Amino acid sequence: MATALTPSEALDWVFAQPRTAKIGVVTRSGAPLVAPIWVARDGEAVIFNTGDDTAKGRAVRRDPRVSLCFDDEAPPFTFVTIAGTAEVIEDLAEVRRWAAVIGGRYMGEDQAEAYGERNGVPGELLVRVTPTKITAFADIAD
Amino acid sequence: MATALTPSEALDWVFAQPRTAKIGVVTRSGAPLVAPIWVARDGEAVIFNTGDDTAKGRAVRRDPRVSLCFDDEAPPFTFVTIAGTAEVIEDLAEVRRWAAVIGGRYMGEDQAEAYGERNGVPGELLVRVTPTKITAFADIAD
Repeated sequence: MATALTPSEALDWVFAQPRTAKIGVVTRSGAPLVAPIWVARDGEAVIFNTGDDTAKGRAVRRDPRVSLCFDDEAPPFTFVTIAGTAEVIEDLAEVRRWAAVIGGRYMGEDQAEAYGERNGVPGELLVRVTPTKITAFADIAD
Repeated sequence: MATALTPSEALDWVFAQPRTAKIGVVTRSGAPLVAPIWVARDGEAVIFNTGDDTAKGRAVRRDPRVSLCFDDEAPPFTFVTIAGTAEVIEDLAEVRRWAAVIGGRYMGEDQAEAYGERNGVPGELLVRVTPTKITAFADIAD
């Protein structure tokens, strides 16, 4: 029996391990685009890095509405979808600080500084997604 | 070093095991929505079931453009994003046939018929996505 998770339970599930988010945005043509991203948690917000000149970066500047989906692909299946509002942060110290946190989460702490240096450069952005609605179900096929 | 996959290699990777697709659509309000779905392969097309009265079902009737993303969340990371055009099929024999195939892929062959019966009923749809562009990279962090 599927179990609905509260927003707080859903965020705890998402960040209990380094899952990738699949972010959905709307491109200039009006078509949807989904891509995997690395994320970190800042309280109730979800943080990610992207480039100013990427499809994701351009899309969130046109329209701040994004959708983030996380799931466990194995039975009994769990998923979390976060509808949220994206804020673009260009301050390079912040971009670099979070790039290190995010790189460390997915590649190991020993790689954190390398990711901070690589992504903490002009043209790189930090995006902070504030959830507006979280939909989450655990153990769907149980 | 990331390796670009050809469309054929990308589809083979996607269907080598029962990965979930994360489908992106555009809702009536113009906001993106991403959700996990079960899929099957029909040649070059990707097939999934949904309900007539779901956000996904309504979205593909308004606009057939969808985005499907699959990824391996562990290092060195691989992802496939498929931009495609959705065709809605209401023929219940087809809905039921594919619901059994899809249920069997994710829950085991012994569950296939039960999924076919459960999802082969009025109000359930089959959606056939014909790829228009496939973007895929393997071993991204290698």
